[in-house]
Amino acid sequence: MDYSKLLLPTLKEEPAEAEVVSHKLMLRAGMIRKLAAGIYSYLPAGLRVLRKVEAIVREEMNRAGAQELLLPAVQPAELWKESGRWEFYGKELLRFKDRHERDCCLGPTHEEVITDLVRRDIRSYRQLPINLYQIQTKFRDEIRPRFGLMRGREFTMKDAYSFDADEAGADESYRKMVDAYVRIFQRCGLEFVPVEADSGAIGGSFSHEFMVLAESGEDAVAACRACGYGANVEKAEVRAPEPEPVAAAGPMERVDTPEQRTVEEIAAFLGVPPSTVAKTLLFETDRGTVAVCVRGDHDANPTKVKNLLGANTAELAGEAAVRQVTGAPVGYAGPVGLPVPVYLDQALRGAGGWVVGANQAGSHYRDAVPGRDFRAAGWADLRTLRAGDPCPRCGQPIAVKRGIEVGHVFKLGTKYSESLRATFLDAQGTERPLIMGCYGIGVGRTAAAAIEQNHDADGIVWPVPLAPWEVVVLPLQVKDDATARVTADLVRGLEAQGVEVLVDDRDERPGVKFKDADLLGIPLRLTVGPKGLAQGVAEARERKSRAEHRVPLAEAAAWAAAWVQERRT
Amino acid sequence: MDYSKLLLPTLKEEPAEAEVVSHKLMLRAGMIRKLAAGIYSYLPAGLRVLRKVEAIVREEMNRAGAQELLLPAVQPAELWKESGRWEFYGKELLRFKDRHERDCCLGPTHEEVITDLVRRDIRSYRQLPINLYQIQTKFRDEIRPRFGLMRGREFTMKDAYSFDADEAGADESYRKMVDAYVRIFQRCGLEFVPVEADSGAIGGSFSHEFMVLAESGEDAVAACRACGYGANVEKAEVRAPEPEPVAAAGPMERVDTPEQRTVEEIAAFLGVPPSTVAKTLLFETDRGTVAVCVRGDHDANPTKVKNLLGANTAELAGEAAVRQVTGAPVGYAGPVGLPVPVYLDQALRGAGGWVVGANQAGSHYRDAVPGRDFRAAGWADLRTLRAGDPCPRCGQPIAVKRGIEVGHVFKLGTKYSESLRATFLDAQGTERPLIMGCYGIGVGRTAAAAIEQNHDADGIVWPVPLAPWEVVVLPLQVKDDATARVTADLVRGLEAQGVEVLVDDRDERPGVKFKDADLLGIPLRLTVGPKGLAQGVAEARERKSRAEHRVPLAEAAAWAAAWVQERRT
Repeated sequence: MDYSKLLLPTLKEEPAEAEVVSHKLMLRAGMIRKLAAGIYSYLPAGLRVLRKVEAIVREEMNRAGAQELLLPAVQPAELWKESGRWEFYGKELLRFKDRHERDCCLGPTHEEVITDLVRRDIRSYRQLPINLYQIQTKFRDEIRPRFGLMRGREFTMKDAYSFDADEAGADESYRKMVDAYVRIFQRCGLEFVPVEADSGAIGGSFSHEFMVLAESGEDAVAACRACGYGANVEKAEVRAPEPEPVAAAGPMERVDTPEQRTVEEIAAFLGVPPSTVAKTLLFETDRGTVAVCVRGDHDANPTKVKNLLGANTAELAGEAAVRQVTGAPVGYAGPVGLPVPVYLDQALRGAGGWVVGANQAGSHYRDAVPGRDFRAAGWADLRTLRAGDPCPRCGQPIAVKRGIEVGHVFKLGTKYSESLRATFLDAQGTERPLIMGCYGIGVGRTAAAAIEQNHDADGIVWPVPLAPWEVVVLPLQVKDDATARVTADLVRGLEAQGVEVLVDDRDERPGVKFKDADLLGIPLRLTVGPKGLAQGVAEARERKSRAEHRVPLAEAAAWAAAWVQERRT
Repeated sequence: MDYSKLLLPTLKEEPAEAEVVSHKLMLRAGMIRKLAAGIYSYLPAGLRVLRKVEAIVREEMNRAGAQELLLPAVQPAELWKESGRWEFYGKELLRFKDRHERDCCLGPTHEEVITDLVRRDIRSYRQLPINLYQIQTKFRDEIRPRFGLMRGREFTMKDAYSFDADEAGADESYRKMVDAYVRIFQRCGLEFVPVEADSGAIGGSFSHEFMVLAESGEDAVAACRACGYGANVEKAEVRAPEPEPVAAAGPMERVDTPEQRTVEEIAAFLGVPPSTVAKTLLFETDRGTVAVCVRGDHDANPTKVKNLLGANTAELAGEAAVRQVTGAPVGYAGPVGLPVPVYLDQALRGAGGWVVGANQAGSHYRDAVPGRDFRAAGWADLRTLRAGDPCPRCGQPIAVKRGIEVGHVFKLGTKYSESLRATFLDAQGTERPLIMGCYGIGVGRTAAAAIEQNHDADGIVWPVPLAPWEVVVLPLQVKDDATARVTADLVRGLEAQGVEVLVDDRDERPGVKFKDADLLGIPLRLTVGPKGLAQGVAEARERKSRAEHRVPLAEAAAWAAAWVQERRT
């Protein structure tokens, strides 16, 4: 492909709108352009990368026995009302009315649509198991779209849905998808970890996320080097602490703590370590307001609170709600005499008494003992894992890394098949609900994550399998006949061997062309310059290692094709 | 691919919801399922056909030098306000507000978005010409979606947009697209005609439609066998009639025509041929109400009225409006003394006087002469061409056929580049508006049109290039070891030669399998039955010609692969 004819508008300047590297580089490398908040056009180079990811996804999904179909973007409200999500799904679900005033939405995900399709066309266990997928445009009306393709509103997603006759089959379908995902991200050339995750708004019984490791990742991931355990920290289990000898606590005692609100302030004021203070947090959930106590040096985990209660939402209460429930300003909440259920993190067990708020401005209690001085509605793992905590599997200290979620698999069970009444007849002729799984991959986000993980000061460093072109041929003197002839031969030779080539045929200074080649991140550059030409060599340079090679012109196409071939997946 | 594992739910019954053959057969052949009015899911077989059309389109677009990109489905209202279409485009444009109350729409077409992209990234004549295309999901909120994929609301479309520095370049870009379209529909194996068309809501200076000929087509197409002229009848020019010797008309005279309203009634009542009656029709347009007179045996053409006035809309006035303008009930409108401009069809020229309505119930005039008895605001070609009319190019009698519009190309000129201020600097450094063209292909509709044109009583008869599978292998006794072995060998042999094979491995009666193979329309069927097996032959049957061949098993794969290869494009 000739650069001069392509819409490949590179930018010299850092685009002001972009906050993360992938967003900046995708704009600078002429891959994407913004149309509106969180809505992007893919220019030819960007689309080529998107299609590379799609092709790998498609091949591995087909290899795993899944079948491709294509579901609509616009969905009728009826199905979402049947599943109950019309009410429950937040404002990310873009709802609208069509010209006949019928409620519709733009699909952020397709559980309802696929379940509706399957309940009409699958009736017998003989048709099971089945796994159906699509690669399709989704819309989620994010409140704060940002980071380019990383958190867009309109985006390309691969979503798959498996249907099984029994739990064992469903687990096997799930395992096949986990295996396929591992192959997909390996083939994309990415460093990633599969981790246990929360099922969130999709629901179901368990789930895993696939995290591409990169410092800019929005998610924190717990990863144990010793045993391989991995989990999103919002989900990661915390080991119950070893029972320690209990120091008998004295009677509960009120102390004045004027203007002392934070754990640090109170601990310093009272001359005790923060780990002996229990902080009380109020959560408003769709199951009512609850209080949660965790150790002063720990963080309460809203996802765990939600899951403990079986709630759909759990958010920290605002100032007004705190004042109403505790009768005191923020900073003095405590479990004693609180009119809402109080749940305690397991770390509070065993030790003697705790410093807690007294639900009164400028006042705390010392030596408050659960069970004696206040009632616990329940004990549970309610805090967020920290780096250095023991691994919940093997007990070794765990690491916390940053990751970008590129894939998510869910064991759904019968959540949707029951609400939408998607059943089949088993071998005995009994009607039973289908057991489902669902499996997503963010296609554009995978491309962006690849850049977050693979770039340097000069630009993108594409893994060969995702590069928009595998080789860039760079003639320095485009108006020179010998250069033109050698370039044409080289390109013809490369294309004959199936290599994807960009030819920078622009009449620009070498510096401009070298800079753009680096920015675009094309894995191998072949320069046809006057010096090399005189000596009968092309100058090859590997983008990643920056290694340089002088290759005789007669062999250059074969050499480069072999270089590329070795690095394909 | 094994039928038993595929979601390929064929239906024995005629689906009640379907009115046209392609819709019926796509449902019956398990290609599509309806989600909501005009919104369909593609099952695996349907998606395979869609992808075949897409691949042909993509190859020919690339060959013509166009570049693929991908634009968003959700578009901000601002751009549509800039182009003026936010107001002008009808309810087919699905408008909605996002969570931040910003006006958006679901793109029915992408002139605004591409022009916005290009105005930001193209600045110099050196970057021209350029042709950018995408294959993408569109939404048009049709008031009466019907006929399955033929007139859906959500659909897959290839849309291309060319940008040129001057008119000659734009004409060349247009010509290249016409050539590419001819190749595309030829390669799809379809019988089609390119015809002159009206530019409609897209606008611009001229346009052609590509019509797949089929009796069920929604469009009427004028096609001259003598000279090759073709046009949509809504656009087709009517030759000005030869000037005839004018019989001097007597003075205009009022006649009573009680209860005579239609042209036929009045002609019969007065004992004159309908061709001597001039009917007067009122059109309400965005340029005001006008009257149009055409010969009693002709049909007024709303598109021609619209274009004559330079209006965006032109619709026949309702009863109330007729009564208000003429002062009489429907059936008695006439040009004499009418308070709105009266335009006359050219067929009314030359002859003497006409029978016209007298704008009074039960009353007409005889011998009304244009210019003498009433004023003509203008003369023009305002009627619809009929079969047998002289071809506007060569004068031979023209035929009118039914067609399905599968492609449409427009010379847009500067309509969008001026309203959106998309300019470039020419070689002299002068800022000038880009000259545009736009080019659409309905991808799903092409698949449906292929069925309308290629089917019989048993089902679909796919042209090989569009078939979901090229060969169906049909083992009759699936539990028989020899059958299984021979089938597996045959399939392996075919797939090794790149043939797309469906194996009907279902344990069903032969009759069921034969019926489904016919319904699915797979071009070549290879049956592995007990009789053939004993004789060492596979029974081949061509779907279209129904020709049967007995092919030695050892040669069957090679024979079938060659048969397919010959028919690919």
